[in-house]
Amino acid sequence: MTEADAPGPLGGGFFDTRVGLAVRRWCAPVLDLAPHASPDDYLARRAELGFAEVNRRFLASAGLGALCVDTGFNPDGLLTPDELGGLAGASAHEIVRLETLAESVAAREGGADGFADAFRTALAERTRNAVGVKSIAAYRAGLDLAGERPADRDVAQAAERLLRGAAGAGRPRVADPVLHRFLIWCASDLRLPVQFHVGYGDADADLRRGDPLLLTGLLRELARAGTPVLLLHNYPFQRSAGYLAQVFPNVFADVGLALHGVGDRASVVLGELLELAPFGKVLYSSDAYGLAEYYHLAALLFRRALGRVLDGGLAEGSWTGSDASRLAGMVAAGNARRVYGLDG
Amino acid sequence: MTEADAPGPLGGGFFDTRVGLAVRRWCAPVLDLAPHASPDDYLARRAELGFAEVNRRFLASAGLGALCVDTGFNPDGLLTPDELGGLAGASAHEIVRLETLAESVAAREGGADGFADAFRTALAERTRNAVGVKSIAAYRAGLDLAGERPADRDVAQAAERLLRGAAGAGRPRVADPVLHRFLIWCASDLRLPVQFHVGYGDADADLRRGDPLLLTGLLRELARAGTPVLLLHNYPFQRSAGYLAQVFPNVFADVGLALHGVGDRASVVLGELLELAPFGKVLYSSDAYGLAEYYHLAALLFRRALGRVLDGGLAEGSWTGSDASRLAGMVAAGNARRVYGLDG
Amino acid sequence: MTEADAPGPLGGGFFDTRVGLAVRRWCAPVLDLAPHASPDDYLARRAELGFAEVNRRFLASAGLGALCVDTGFNPDGLLTPDELGGLAGASAHEIVRLETLAESVAAREGGADGFADAFRTALAERTRNAVGVKSIAAYRAGLDLAGERPADRDVAQAAERLLRGAAGAGRPRVADPVLHRFLIWCASDLRLPVQFHVGYGDADADLRRGDPLLLTGLLRELARAGTPVLLLHNYPFQRSAGYLAQVFPNVFADVGLALHGVGDRASVVLGELLELAPFGKVLYSSDAYGLAEYYHLAALLFRRALGRVLDGGLAEGSWTGSDASRLAGMVAAGNARRVYGLDG
Repeated sequence: MTEADAPGPLGGGFFDTRVGLAVRRWCAPVLDLAPHASPDDYLARRAELGFAEVNRRFLASAGLGALCVDTGFNPDGLLTPDELGGLAGASAHEIVRLETLAESVAAREGGADGFADAFRTALAERTRNAVGVKSIAAYRAGLDLAGERPADRDVAQAAERLLRGAAGAGRPRVADPVLHRFLIWCASDLRLPVQFHVGYGDADADLRRGDPLLLTGLLRELARAGTPVLLLHNYPFQRSAGYLAQVFPNVFADVGLALHGVGDRASVVLGELLELAPFGKVLYSSDAYGLAEYYHLAALLFRRALGRVLDGGLAEGSWTGSDASRLAGMVAAGNARRVYGLDG
Repeated sequence: MTEADAPGPLGGGFFDTRVGLAVRRWCAPVLDLAPHASPDDYLARRAELGFAEVNRRFLASAGLGALCVDTGFNPDGLLTPDELGGLAGASAHEIVRLETLAESVAAREGGADGFADAFRTALAERTRNAVGVKSIAAYRAGLDLAGERPADRDVAQAAERLLRGAAGAGRPRVADPVLHRFLIWCASDLRLPVQFHVGYGDADADLRRGDPLLLTGLLRELARAGTPVLLLHNYPFQRSAGYLAQVFPNVFADVGLALHGVGDRASVVLGELLELAPFGKVLYSSDAYGLAEYYHLAALLFRRALGRVLDGGLAEGSWTGSDASRLAGMVAAGNARRVYGLDG
Repeated sequence: MTEADAPGPLGGGFFDTRVGLAVRRWCAPVLDLAPHASPDDYLARRAELGFAEVNRRFLASAGLGALCVDTGFNPDGLLTPDELGGLAGASAHEIVRLETLAESVAAREGGADGFADAFRTALAERTRNAVGVKSIAAYRAGLDLAGERPADRDVAQAAERLLRGAAGAGRPRVADPVLHRFLIWCASDLRLPVQFHVGYGDADADLRRGDPLLLTGLLRELARAGTPVLLLHNYPFQRSAGYLAQVFPNVFADVGLALHGVGDRASVVLGELLELAPFGKVLYSSDAYGLAEYYHLAALLFRRALGRVLDGGLAEGSWTGSDASRLAGMVAAGNARRVYGLDG
């Protein structure tokens, strides 16, 4: 339910977090319970309904028009994008995780020499129907990635290290700045939007290496190449993400994972992103994974948060009602449709 | 009254800060003055009452159930934990400052060879009745401390540097990543909770080296060892501290020093910590030192801040009144009692 | 209108930002349009009035008592301080940009040997009627500048690199930590207040290198020398700037550029600066440049933001009405008059 693996022996139960309290408040009624149902009642009712019905209810209640689904993290046992779209009554689109694809290419390629070409071919094939790619460099080598496209020779050497590591560990694991950059530039060459996990994540991430400002040099180069970049989550660096979304023409941002993570503080976090970020550069995302609750909860908290930000400005006379409607439409749907080309 | 040594010649008087204004607002009445008494009237009345009576009033008005007192910073001329507890009508417990103890061991030990064992023995003795230890690495070598337990050989070399330095400076001063780590692991071996000064402090601290995210690797290792860690103060990194408190089962956090430092902004700062931090992982602290006002002021501002955070959620329907009471009890007392074993 | 060069091909128009919405809300009436006039109407009316009339109206409506104008960035085609002062009905004072002056000295000096003396002489002359200097190290080498005064030999070598670079690029460009430090210490020797651009700026800046905490060592040395330092803008590091303004007697701060950049969020940003910063250490600035709108908008948003911060404390009983008036006078005028010696 949170980004922790387990509560500690000295306390810190997950239901006693903002997200846990939000589940009791907002998800319980979807399961026919009263708001604020106790954790025990909630878990009992959830088990009674069964996961298929639970998934159906939460996806349907999210009110989504389209889903962009990253399929690269432990997909076994998860619903496919099409299954999710079916439950949500929405169109579904795939986001291909770069490192996962690179690791599967490395696992089946014999030598390091052929890696670069093999990856390029695999990416082109794999993304034929995808709307973008995602890099999880933040979890691996960190976001301090040089801007320039890496030289072929450097990529070949990095591939060799990757395969050597795979021989030792049993499977290849991409965690090398040269490789992350190579994967990203391959996606740029295919004119695909590139998502970056930024900031808040689980304990595997070193949050210091997930600061979006570390990407400044790479964003500058990707701007020159005309590659759209989407900075995901960003907490607690949402103001820095807003700055990057303002000064780079190709940069977009959301506060996805943070939105349900912070429960009823979502409007505070979204408000900070929207200090500098143009309304035309901010997107919705849920970062829902595993628990179907998050599809419902993230959408609900986001609508409330955006509503609060826009109503607040309206009450102060900062903009008109028609401005607010237009800006809401951009952030909630229009920007995503445009960047990912969902209508094209 | 603030973390500055002195106001500047061009202005910046301490009474014209949020904390100074809070002293006039909330401390003046404890000295029988009207709220917002002028600085001159305040200082005159304080002198008239005398420090013994002033101490008595502020400690009594704090409404404390138990104190955990760090005795390692210039304790001469300060009240002891027992004296403080007596004035507060509360139980008092000691926190042993690691670097202070290490420096006294080094000062009396002849050679570097015996330092490690001598420190281990001294720590075991000194903490027999203590409830935890504190590291001020943030003020010395900074928090960028490697996770692993340092090798004996490295500790011996570091001890040699410490003694050489002491010969030059007249007294030993621990400011070496290897030594800070050694001290912390000695405490871990004794199963003692370890406090870290994090973030906001005086001008001696380099705030960049006091970022709690620098501790990530060490927290991961201490989590494996089952050692409770308490991140103190954390300002302006309270959101990062909240993240660490969420993802590591052994990590707890407060916004102590910041609470009275920011006066009536305390609820904003506490609210940010409580975005990701589970309610079961957040503690109260005053960081009161020197001026008795802080015992009263920190407790009062904390109660108001926590009340505002919890009442805010109640008003929005984020949780129930009974949730709010339970969460308040955890943050205000239960978590500390559990982590420090105050009832045991 | 923002710190971006151009909107992106996939959206992010400048009028759909907080600052753009604030221009429509607050600047349109100054041009006789209704609040929230459409962008097209606004631009048409602005063109119709002509820039001279537009400048006149916005400068006059800003309600300024004195201007301190940095004349070092592309001054051709801009109004001079005296012209600005004339339109504003205010006294005008000059701030000399250190790097610009150093580059003009380097361009006309033949050899590196004479650079240091030539710069010292030029600075003394150029600042005879100036009230301070400004460093844009944040845009060039970054703020991670060692505290000590650089040795003559190091300055001579740096000057040689500067002239060699100029021979290649056609003109000298100061972007060398040694040179930035040298320029700053020359200003300190002349007892001039030193401004630093900090944080938020355009895409040329690497925001990570613009963190004010990087200046800690230099601020400590400049405090010893008694040199007033002004940290400008600081977004999103305003809390760190507030900390520095509290613990160093010579440090002052504003949130200038951010104030109009974040539109109606200005009170949030100012409120964070004023958590730790003494009221006697916070100044107003507009960072207006190019567009006359910013003189009006920054002043208006600042007054509203400061009003909201002070009224908020008044409503909570944090201070009295007479405190609030006194603190407002300090932040809005008194501190600047004192630091820059505007009345002397």
